[in-house]
Amino acid sequence: MKKIRETVFAIVGLGLIGGSYAKALRNLKAKKIIGVNRNKIVGLMAKDEGYIDELCDYNKPDLREADVIICAIYPNVFYDFVKNNVAAFKQDVLLTDAMGIKGDVPEKIDKVLGPDMDFVAAHPMAGREGKGYGQSAAEIFNASNYIIVKRASNTPEHIAWLTEMAKDMGCKNVVELTIKEHDSIVAYTSDLPHIMAVSLVNSDSLNDNTKYFIAGSFRDATRVADINAALWKELFLLNKENVLEEIRKFQDQLNAWTLALKNNDEEKLVTMMDRAKNQRKELFNAKNYR
Amino acid sequence: MKKIRETVFAIVGLGLIGGSYAKALRNLKAKKIIGVNRNKIVGLMAKDEGYIDELCDYNKPDLREADVIICAIYPNVFYDFVKNNVAAFKQDVLLTDAMGIKGDVPEKIDKVLGPDMDFVAAHPMAGREGKGYGQSAAEIFNASNYIIVKRASNTPEHIAWLTEMAKDMGCKNVVELTIKEHDSIVAYTSDLPHIMAVSLVNSDSLNDNTKYFIAGSFRDATRVADINAALWKELFLLNKENVLEEIRKFQDQLNAWTLALKNNDEEKLVTMMDRAKNQRKELFNAKNYR
Repeated sequence: MKKIRETVFAIVGLGLIGGSYAKALRNLKAKKIIGVNRNKIVGLMAKDEGYIDELCDYNKPDLREADVIICAIYPNVFYDFVKNNVAAFKQDVLLTDAMGIKGDVPEKIDKVLGPDMDFVAAHPMAGREGKGYGQSAAEIFNASNYIIVKRASNTPEHIAWLTEMAKDMGCKNVVELTIKEHDSIVAYTSDLPHIMAVSLVNSDSLNDNTKYFIAGSFRDATRVADINAALWKELFLLNKENVLEEIRKFQDQLNAWTLALKNNDEEKLVTMMDRAKNQRKELFNAKNYR
Repeated sequence: MKKIRETVFAIVGLGLIGGSYAKALRNLKAKKIIGVNRNKIVGLMAKDEGYIDELCDYNKPDLREADVIICAIYPNVFYDFVKNNVAAFKQDVLLTDAMGIKGDVPEKIDKVLGPDMDFVAAHPMAGREGKGYGQSAAEIFNASNYIIVKRASNTPEHIAWLTEMAKDMGCKNVVELTIKEHDSIVAYTSDLPHIMAVSLVNSDSLNDNTKYFIAGSFRDATRVADINAALWKELFLLNKENVLEEIRKFQDQLNAWTLALKNNDEEKLVTMMDRAKNQRKELFNAKNYR
């Protein structure tokens, strides 16, 4: 495949992630970046700022020029977008996405693609507070991890090309996983913490005096309760079986606490806390964590 | 009672909280600050830095000069310290503490105090990462909330005096609660988030690939898993019944998630998330939150 300087990109969805792709690829001197965005004003802004060269109509985009299409839109519209517009894709396009959960989407996408097109499911472990183009920045990729959910249908050449692209954008590690491995880890590291935060705030115990007692632990534990319900509802349901499994495993831990407390089992309490302390340290001292 | 400039303080335990008291009271020009610390080196350091005027032997302190004694030591040694040394307290001393959980400790303390002594259980909602004198700072009180766990035995004069002291140190709100109200709120806002963090890290799901997937939500949800097991074991057991109740209520929320997911109940999922989002915003936009 071609170098980034010789490659034409289309970015579908110029939100936080899509906008950041546009900015990072612009920095890398991509030959041409075509933007596709439902909200035209945002697209015009990106064009005005020079991060995209051309703006296409979301409902009738002409993407025949794009060697690589990066879709950074909500899971529920991603499949429809591809199905409705595949006739306007380049015959041997490399299609990729940025969805945190894959589920059965890759399989569905494959069915509507032409024989020489390849969909490589991937996403950067990158982000920041807020949402939308205004929050996007090339720097979110710096030292992040880039996850490729590799499937038998993907060509080694495309995997290698995306790996290079991710590293050029600043990603530190490129990790290849199966869909099952991927979605199971995401249920643990992302879905579950969000459910915990929402559950803590929704507890019957919240009352008028709570606000006087908020210290770091409660603040941290509830930060992501400020959640985009429309998006996360989809992510949770796409990954339902894994999420249910993670809730179950987490409840096992809570049950261990309940038992140890009821039995005044000091040794067990200390063992659980020391284990967590050490495991967290190991996790966060790992070199590949930014 | 006297003004701070005319008051002699004794601070027992020069750790993060005790050290911060010494520094804040020094800034307020307390007449004299007597330090009592098990580790003598730390006491000498505080004296060298000028935050205490005099260092007393932890095992045989002479505190007859102190109008106010602030005990900032672990719950399990607090009672013993008072019992063993009450003969060396001023006859009408105002004794206060900094324990996050009160349990039956105030009642036990009352029994060993002289007739004119008053123990007002209190603690600042203040702190920061780490522990020990080295982390202490007068600024931790700035805009924090100061909690007084008021009991029938406390004189209004002492409550009023501590309220003034807390405000002088920079605390924004002084809140008066009963022990039951207090310990129940703490179980929710502090004990439970710590148990959640430990439980998340200890889940069977943690594996070698976890580190590549750590984003903000997992980092925040596990931050306090870096826990002081010796201290927290005591805090959890002192507040056992309330903690068990909070775990139970939290599990009710997780069960609601499990049910909604199993039923693909999108409306319920969105309702739960929107409720949490709004409640958290309200909580953190409240004026009294720093």
